[in-house]
This record gives sequence, structure tokens and C-alpha cells, in this order.
Amino acid sequence: MSELTLNGKRILLTHADAFMGPVLIEVLEAQGATVIADTDSLRDPDAPERLVGRAGPVDIVVANLAIPAPDSRVEDVGETEWSDTFAALVDPLPRLLRAVLPQFRERGAGKMLVMGSAAALRGMKRTSTYSAARGAQIAWAQAVGVELARENIRVNVIAQNFVDNPTYFPASVQENPRFQERLKREVPLGRLVAAREDAQFVAYLCSDAANCFVGQVFPVCGGWVQR
Amino acid sequence: MSELTLNGKRILLTHADAFMGPVLIEVLEAQGATVIADTDSLRDPDAPERLVGRAGPVDIVVANLAIPAPDSRVEDVGETEWSDTFAALVDPLPRLLRAVLPQFRERGAGKMLVMGSAAALRGMKRTSTYSAARGAQIAWAQAVGVELARENIRVNVIAQNFVDNPTYFPASVQENPRFQERLKREVPLGRLVAAREDAQFVAYLCSDAANCFVGQVFPVCGGWVQR
Amino acid sequence: MSELTLNGKRILLTHADAFMGPVLIEVLEAQGATVIADTDSLRDPDAPERLVGRAGPVDIVVANLAIPAPDSRVEDVGETEWSDTFAALVDPLPRLLRAVLPQFRERGAGKMLVMGSAAALRGMKRTSTYSAARGAQIAWAQAVGVELARENIRVNVIAQNFVDNPTYFPASVQENPRFQERLKREVPLGRLVAAREDAQFVAYLCSDAANCFVGQVFPVCGGWVQR
Amino acid sequence: MSELTLNGKRILLTHADAFMGPVLIEVLEAQGATVIADTDSLRDPDAPERLVGRAGPVDIVVANLAIPAPDSRVEDVGETEWSDTFAALVDPLPRLLRAVLPQFRERGAGKMLVMGSAAALRGMKRTSTYSAARGAQIAWAQAVGVELARENIRVNVIAQNFVDNPTYFPASVQENPRFQERLKREVPLGRLVAAREDAQFVAYLCSDAANCFVGQVFPVCGGWVQR
Repeated sequence: MSELTLNGKRILLTHADAFMGPVLIEVLEAQGATVIADTDSLRDPDAPERLVGRAGPVDIVVANLAIPAPDSRVEDVGETEWSDTFAALVDPLPRLLRAVLPQFRERGAGKMLVMGSAAALRGMKRTSTYSAARGAQIAWAQAVGVELARENIRVNVIAQNFVDNPTYFPASVQENPRFQERLKREVPLGRLVAAREDAQFVAYLCSDAANCFVGQVFPVCGGWVQR
Repeated sequence: MSELTLNGKRILLTHADAFMGPVLIEVLEAQGATVIADTDSLRDPDAPERLVGRAGPVDIVVANLAIPAPDSRVEDVGETEWSDTFAALVDPLPRLLRAVLPQFRERGAGKMLVMGSAAALRGMKRTSTYSAARGAQIAWAQAVGVELARENIRVNVIAQNFVDNPTYFPASVQENPRFQERLKREVPLGRLVAAREDAQFVAYLCSDAANCFVGQVFPVCGGWVQR
Repeated sequence: MSELTLNGKRILLTHADAFMGPVLIEVLEAQGATVIADTDSLRDPDAPERLVGRAGPVDIVVANLAIPAPDSRVEDVGETEWSDTFAALVDPLPRLLRAVLPQFRERGAGKMLVMGSAAALRGMKRTSTYSAARGAQIAWAQAVGVELARENIRVNVIAQNFVDNPTYFPASVQENPRFQERLKREVPLGRLVAAREDAQFVAYLCSDAANCFVGQVFPVCGGWVQR
Repeated sequence: MSELTLNGKRILLTHADAFMGPVLIEVLEAQGATVIADTDSLRDPDAPERLVGRAGPVDIVVANLAIPAPDSRVEDVGETEWSDTFAALVDPLPRLLRAVLPQFRERGAGKMLVMGSAAALRGMKRTSTYSAARGAQIAWAQAVGVELARENIRVNVIAQNFVDNPTYFPASVQENPRFQERLKREVPLGRLVAAREDAQFVAYLCSDAANCFVGQVFPVCGGWVQR
């Protein structure tokens, strides 16, 4: 199915060495994409523009932003935790979009997919900072998704949780029997979503077959959130 | 990507001559599936079991159930409209699942995808009967999706609206300038979702790449509902 | 606050001896309402019209419909369970609304509140029949809520779960230590919502203070569903 | 109903001269509360702690945070707009909660209600900055609501839109016939929610009658969002 291939598509992937980065490179390239896999920090306000400037033509931005999730209790959330989390996960989004928008408009097409978190859709203990930042991502993607839809520019967001990745579910966590019990109890799927399953869904959303989705939130979390 | 092919999969498609039926046959077969395209009415309580009985091995059921949507005002919803709508859209679901479940269990795998409606997620005027029936579908799929997840049986539901199809958006509707205005005003995408786009998403969900989704609701409606 | 009183309001309450019935009578009357507490079965298609006919003027209908929730596995859901559940929980809704609508319109005001279930919003095992019926209620209320909003007729629905009531959480369930553990593990509130808390929210929604809500779903489930 | 009174409750209200501030003072005091109506900016990181320090005992915090909503197109969202919006709407939340938490815990009870926006739940054009900040509020409230529920500390959030208030719907907007048309077309209620209706719902949620709600999002937007 030609609409499923990513042949000829240039995909800019951020934080490519963290979170879903490595598996995304593998799966997106296997489906034909040219992946510009960037590993720079995007905290500097000018970094996104510089990144886009050196990336060459970009058809799709996969905003894969990650930090080790703070697990502070409410009373222990400090100013640095808060500002660092937003600086890493939230602030780069409008800068990335602004930077890439001119070429999207010139081409009359473009896509941004945000690798977000279902922690923004369902409350959990000791994740308030992280959830807040992920909530900003989702609401932002819904708004810009609606705003840009008529220009053939599609912005959508994946809301994932319980997906196998080294940033949030490293081996040390997975090996913990209590974590495995929690997985069986709380996640209908009864296992982590495989990194590859998540990446293939990303590949699908990057393909032309998925050009009908705009401003939409897709949970990928083994049924932990159902919509 | 081998996980995306439907080679070797036998997909039972109901009401195959209505709603998304024709395009589903085309797209699913193009991706390698064998489609058992049934066109019988499923209103008779025994029809689903008979259908499954004669279908041979079935890996996936695509429950594509449709009737012309009644557009009665609340005060004009009659007993026949109500019972006919539930008989066509809702009652066949548990019967289909019961009928196919033994072979799913024997094989340790199986999938059902319900072609549902976003009318169940967002209220509209003059659709109360239809919305109620579609709401039953969604809540049912969420429940059985959770119940069967551990057996490698995945039940999910597409909540579509503003998708091009002859049952709900025939040419006569699409040609109406007021409908086109409504589309531009109410649907972020600004156009109908193409039948083929919807069918390709179905194909994706039927593929092994999507084995991580259970009990989930996927809006396909041009951003009219965002999650 | 005069908008909070129910003085002078005549509230028709169905299945008044089951589910939230008894506590609703107590709380609604304490806030000044005249409660027409009906205990008849509404399964006969003509029963809602007869009920409204003999009730006299009705300002608000509280559609409190309940049956002992079947807890069959998917494969054990029988035809009778299915049809009985829909006959008890779903089919009376449009009949009740049709019956009361003429006097609502004559008066230029009216309200219906459906006592629904959060089981329609989040899947659980062995509740497929019940969830489906409750899902029909919610989608129906969203649709008619939108349709009738401009006529000052408000239809809304409470999506409750883990609320103390004899129909779904009888003493035998509450005394079970495993149930108490489940409550602590799955329900953020850590306890059942008190019957009186639920009833007071109903009283609030019945009051003129809440005339701004239309077609809306209100979870009342101790945070088990957050919206 | 004694649970509905706010007698004896000390409510700290922020930005009391903006957004829902004035009507909240009126309605909360009319129901018996002592309102500590603060009008200071909370942008200084130390401001929330100072505010709580001088407020005396506080039973409930109503986090009414507002700024004139920027209506920039995506390409015009500047660094200052972005950082100002988060500084005003988002960053004060964890600081307020941290400041008030010790006395909540000492008392074994406490409440925070965030006056948030439905713009975080449904995308709109030219609101990306504002929506993102409001999305952070909602996800944060869901997370801390779950975390603190067992301590009898309830955090919930109202997601409002189309509520009459001078910050977002000043007379100049309301007088615009195009706005009135939009209201009739897009908002099922067909009118703005009255300021007083919103404030009464806040009063309800502040009362002991509503002690069963934790981490929950309540849309108040005339049916524009249904849950």
C-alpha cells in the first residue's frame, strides 16, 4: 500500500537517543524514511530554530521529548524540578513548530507528532510535575492541530504509558516483581506495550494513510486509558 | 514491515454491502487478507452463530453494522425506530463475539473491531436513537476489551463521523451546499475523511502491529472529536 | 441561596425503592421538593406514559433505573440477560421523555436527570451487558441534551460507580475484605461515595442554580473516572 | 441542608479582582464563607507562600488565575507571551499547594479548586498558548487530586468556557453580533453561562456536600464540552 510507505519522507526526530528515539529511528527508516536524528538538548530557546535550520527539508517533526520523570511528592516539588521539566518537555514545542512552519506552508503540507504521555489523561501519585507538563503538550497539540488543519498541516499527539523504553521503564524497574504485579493489576493488556508496537503506530501516523487525523490524542498504554 | 501485512488473515466482515463494507473489502484484500464478506441481515438472534458457522476459520471480525440513521426529533422517536436500531446495531455484537470466541480461544488469539460512531461521544440534534445505540457499542467494546485482553483477544472500536460512505453521506447530502458549509464550520479537517483513509486505519488495527490496543476507542472524524 | 432550594418543584422519581431511590426521596424532600416516588416496573412500553399521566405536573424527572447488575462472562451473556437489561435501563428513557415533553414545552422549562453509571466510561470485566446499557443511556442523554437545550429543557446524566447503595453494593459486598482492598487500590477516594453525597449532587443539579448544564456527563465515582 | 452552607469556612481566593473573582466573593460570602480576597500578582515565586502566610487559617483555596488570553496565531506566539502565560496561570499552582499543605495536613482536611478552562479539553484556533497553560492546570489537578485524596485533601478543577466574565468575555465582545451568532451556533446552551451560575457551582464544590470529588474535571461551558 503506497500510502503506508515513508519513502522520500524526511523526518526530524528530537532527543533521538532517549525515550522512543532509538526504536523510532529503526522503524521509521525500515519503512523508507530518512530520519534526521538529533540528540541535542532543546532547552536553549534558539536551539529548535538552529536545529531546523541545519536539518534541511523536513516533512515531519516527531517531537520526542523526554527527561527522567521526577517522582516527588507534592510537598517536595521544587522550583528547579518544575522549571526544568517544562523547559525540557513543553517550551520547545512552539519553537519547533514556528521554525518548521514556513517550509510546511511553502510545501502546502507538513506534520508534527508529539510523543506525549497518558499521565496527562489520568492522575497518578507522585507525578504532578510531569503530568502537568504532559498536559500542556496535549492541550497545545489539540489547539494547533485545529488551527493548522486547513493548511494540510497535521499536528497530533500520542499519549503513551506503560510502553517499554529505557527512559521511563528501565530494566531495573521491569525486573521489580512489584512492578510486574502492578502491570498485571492496572494495565488491561497485562504487559508493557513493546517499543516496536509504539514505533509502528508512529510510522502509521507519519504515513499519508493517516492524513485525516488532526489535533487528535491517541492513547497507547495497553488500555490503561481507553480514549 | 511484516507486521503490517494481512497475509494469511481471514477477516469476517458483516453488512459488507453497506456503510464501510465495500471499501473495507478492497483495502483489506489489497493488504493480503482473505475477506469473508457477508451481506446477510443479522437481526435474527441465530444469524451471527450461523454466519460464523459457515465462515470457516476467522482471525478477525470487523463488525460493520449500519442502518440508515433515523433523524427523528425526540418527540417523534417511535417504538419501531428504537427497537429496529438496537436490533441492527447493538444486539448482534454479543452474539457475534460468543460465536467466534471458541475458535479465538482455541487459537489463543483473535480480534474484533467494531465500526462505531463518534455520535456516541458528542451529542447532536435529531440523532438520539442512533447515538444511544452507538453508545451501547462503545461501552460494550470497552468492557469486553478489558475482559478478554489477557487471552490475546483484542476488541476495539472506531468512533467515526464525517467519513465518506454511501450509508450516511450519500451524494445527495454531499452535494448540498449547506452540508459543505457545515463541514467547513464544524469539522477541523474541513472535508470528509476519505473512505479509503478510514479503511486503511482499520487495516492497520487488524494487523499484528496493532496487537497492543485493547478496549480502546479511536475517533476517526476529522478532529470533530479529539479523543 | 434561593436558587438552591427545591421548594415548589415536583420531581418524578422512578424505581424509587431501588438503587438511589430511598436516599433521593429523603434528600430531595429535605430541600423542599415534592417527590412523586414511583415504584412500578417500567418495562411495559406504555408504563412511562401512564406514570407521567397520573403524576400530575412534573418539573423534573429523575430517571433512576436499576436492576441487579449481571456479572456474566462474555461467553455466558444470554439473550434474556441482554434484553432484560436494555428493557429495564434503556428503553424507558425515550418513553419517559416523550411522555413528559408536552408539559415541559407548555411550561417552557423542564429537566431530566439520568442516574447512570461510570461503567459506561471505563471498561471492567464481567460487566459487558450492563456497561453497554449504561453506555446507551449516556450517549442518549448527550444527544437529547443538545437537542432540547434551546427550549430550556435540560437533560444530563450522572455516571456513578462506587456509590453506597443497596442495589450494587449491598452489605454482603461491603463486608468482603477483598472488596475493601479493591476499593483502596482502585478508587482514589479510598471509600465508597456516601449515598447522601450522591443525592445532594442530584439535588444540586435539580436546582435552578444548575440551569446552565445541558447534555453533560458527571462522574460521581470517587475519582475512578476523572472526567 | 447543613452540608451546603459555607459557614465557618475560610476561603482564600486569588486574583480576586479578575476573571471569576468578584462574583465568587459575592456568592461564597452569601453562603456563609469568609473570603480572603487577594488581588496580588502571584508571579513572584515567593508570592504564594507570602500570601498563605498572611491569610491566616485557610480551609479552601480557590485558584482563580487569569490573564487576558493571547489570541496569537501559531507563528506569532512569542517567547514573552509563552512565559508570561505559564508564569501567571501554571507556576503558582504547586507553590500555592505547597504553602497551604501543612495546615491542611494538620487539620486533616482541605480543598483546592482550580478555575480552569475547557480550552484545554477542546482545541480552538489562536489559543495555543492559553490552551497549553490550561492543559497543564488540568493534568496537574488530576495528579495531585489522586495523590492527596486519602488525606482528606480534595483538589478538583473547573473547565469553563463561555462563562460571562469581564476577563474573557467583556462587553465589547458580547456586543459583537458575530459573537452572538457563534454562541448560538457552537454552544448548545445558546447563551453564556451566567457568572452567578458558575460561582454557585464553585460554592457547591467548596461545601462539605461535595467531599466525595477528588482529582476531577468539571466542564462548565454550556455543553460545548460534555465531559
